[in-house]
Amino acid sequence: MNQLSKDISEDILNGSKVALSKAITLTESTLPYDKILSQEIIDVLLPFTGNSIRIGVTGVTGVGKSTFIDSFGMYLCNLKRKVAVLAVDPSSVTNKGSILGDKTRMQNLSKIDSAYIRPSPSGKALGGVTETTRNVILLCEAAGFDTIIVETVGVGQSEVSVKNMTDFFLLLMLAGAGDELQGMKRGIMEMADAIFINKADGGNIDSAKQAAQLYNMALQLFPNSESGWKPKAEVCSAITNLGIDTCWKLISDFEVQMKRTNYFNKNRKQQELIAFRETFRYSIVDKLMNNTLFKEKIEKTENDISENKISVSNAVQSILYEVNFLIN
Amino acid sequence: MNQLSKDISEDILNGSKVALSKAITLTESTLPYDKILSQEIIDVLLPFTGNSIRIGVTGVTGVGKSTFIDSFGMYLCNLKRKVAVLAVDPSSVTNKGSILGDKTRMQNLSKIDSAYIRPSPSGKALGGVTETTRNVILLCEAAGFDTIIVETVGVGQSEVSVKNMTDFFLLLMLAGAGDELQGMKRGIMEMADAIFINKADGGNIDSAKQAAQLYNMALQLFPNSESGWKPKAEVCSAITNLGIDTCWKLISDFEVQMKRTNYFNKNRKQQELIAFRETFRYSIVDKLMNNTLFKEKIEKTENDISENKISVSNAVQSILYEVNFLIN
Repeated sequence: MNQLSKDISEDILNGSKVALSKAITLTESTLPYDKILSQEIIDVLLPFTGNSIRIGVTGVTGVGKSTFIDSFGMYLCNLKRKVAVLAVDPSSVTNKGSILGDKTRMQNLSKIDSAYIRPSPSGKALGGVTETTRNVILLCEAAGFDTIIVETVGVGQSEVSVKNMTDFFLLLMLAGAGDELQGMKRGIMEMADAIFINKADGGNIDSAKQAAQLYNMALQLFPNSESGWKPKAEVCSAITNLGIDTCWKLISDFEVQMKRTNYFNKNRKQQELIAFRETFRYSIVDKLMNNTLFKEKIEKTENDISENKISVSNAVQSILYEVNFLIN
Repeated sequence: MNQLSKDISEDILNGSKVALSKAITLTESTLPYDKILSQEIIDVLLPFTGNSIRIGVTGVTGVGKSTFIDSFGMYLCNLKRKVAVLAVDPSSVTNKGSILGDKTRMQNLSKIDSAYIRPSPSGKALGGVTETTRNVILLCEAAGFDTIIVETVGVGQSEVSVKNMTDFFLLLMLAGAGDELQGMKRGIMEMADAIFINKADGGNIDSAKQAAQLYNMALQLFPNSESGWKPKAEVCSAITNLGIDTCWKLISDFEVQMKRTNYFNKNRKQQELIAFRETFRYSIVDKLMNNTLFKEKIEKTENDISENKISVSNAVQSILYEVNFLIN
């Protein structure tokens, strides 16, 4: 094993944020040597991972995710918890670049020594961001962080991806305007362990409470989840701190209950198996392309598709046949 | 070749909707024999496909996609066009079942002989729905439909998937409430060839026009798309038919311009190659699992993950190594 991997791993176990950041950068890198190092580090640290509650936070842009996490994280730090905040933000389809690249969005938390904020790796597709973030969670846990908050941009598959790497999935919403639009994102509501109506301050409190009541009713209509947990809707405000303690109590109750029934571990193992198959799926084609025979066949098939000689579905069937031939 | 495939193919070329529906059902089926039949049919029909404009329509729930498509489709049928409406709606994460299963959402169009409405196949994941819908487009084109409208539920990856199987991508939005929320879905706006502010009727007209103006300004800030097309924002109403003709004119202009620069065909070929790689990626793991040696290795690796002996990333690396070994 490389001396550098060894040194970084030891420093991480001693709680060094500098070493943690270094290891995360290696994990995000696409250079082969960096990959080897980061894999060695994760191998060494693996026995020291897992001892945290992993919380996913989602909600549409404008719902106040960053300010909520800032207040919530401060509350947790006051309880002597060590909080790491990560983000999952795959590059937008046309443009490269990350929306969540800015630490200054969490003005208070970014100044606290027991907190660690890391933006989403930029210029990566969802598959890459997901694999990296899963590893970053492990690294943060090894560095002693006991509360991992993973934020998503609230668009599309990234929510499923964060749900699949966290223990508790929190959906932030707004009362009033746009409510109908948000509420109909049924697929996301089904994934939530709790819905918090944010910005419940000033003249907004009553409408927020009404919205929470409505969502509580809606949640009862959903089928029971496998975990046995009953999701709840509550109100909160990142400005007045209303509901911040309720949120933590809910998550703590969840953790106790899920550990009692052993669903907590069962779910994590399940998540790892899903991640394994997904990552494998995304790596296998590149690997096969290293085989000259196979690569030629792929290129010929793509040519046939371009010349309208074969449909996409039939092209896939013929390539699958080829793989079979190579293997047997 | 099977006589049944031959008969169905001929009937489709003669414009039989019954045969078309039969072929689509075969395409949606997971039974091996049905798959063989549907592949034969698509093989035969492939030379007769491609002669349509493929229009993707997206927008959040509540924006009025169905009523818009109903009015828009009626307008096109009056122009003697043959309109097929398809839907891409992957099963929600927890629950099986399709939201867009209901033909009655398009009350007028569903009664017209030159229109064909087909709901999304139910109980399928996005990968499966995408592959099926791509084939359904081909079948509809062979049956003589010259305008294919593909509707998405407006949540997540399904939008990218529809963008990747259509020529023109139309985003429907609402003025006023929820505007901020919708507007920030920047990734979706970047994909749009046109934005139409729907429900521009009654007291809503002015705010819709204002919103269109704003979006027109926002669209100018986006980088030029590869096609050279300049997306526009307009208003429309499915009730008063305002803007329905504008929408069709825009799409027709797009088609003329894109065919002149040859981007039209270039884009379709590009889409097919992307679809090929994606579908292959999703099929290859199942195929590999048919290899006993490989299956054993996968199961051992999954066991190691469960017992925390190996991280997910390293497990993937070790399996990839194994594939290499099997192939060479």
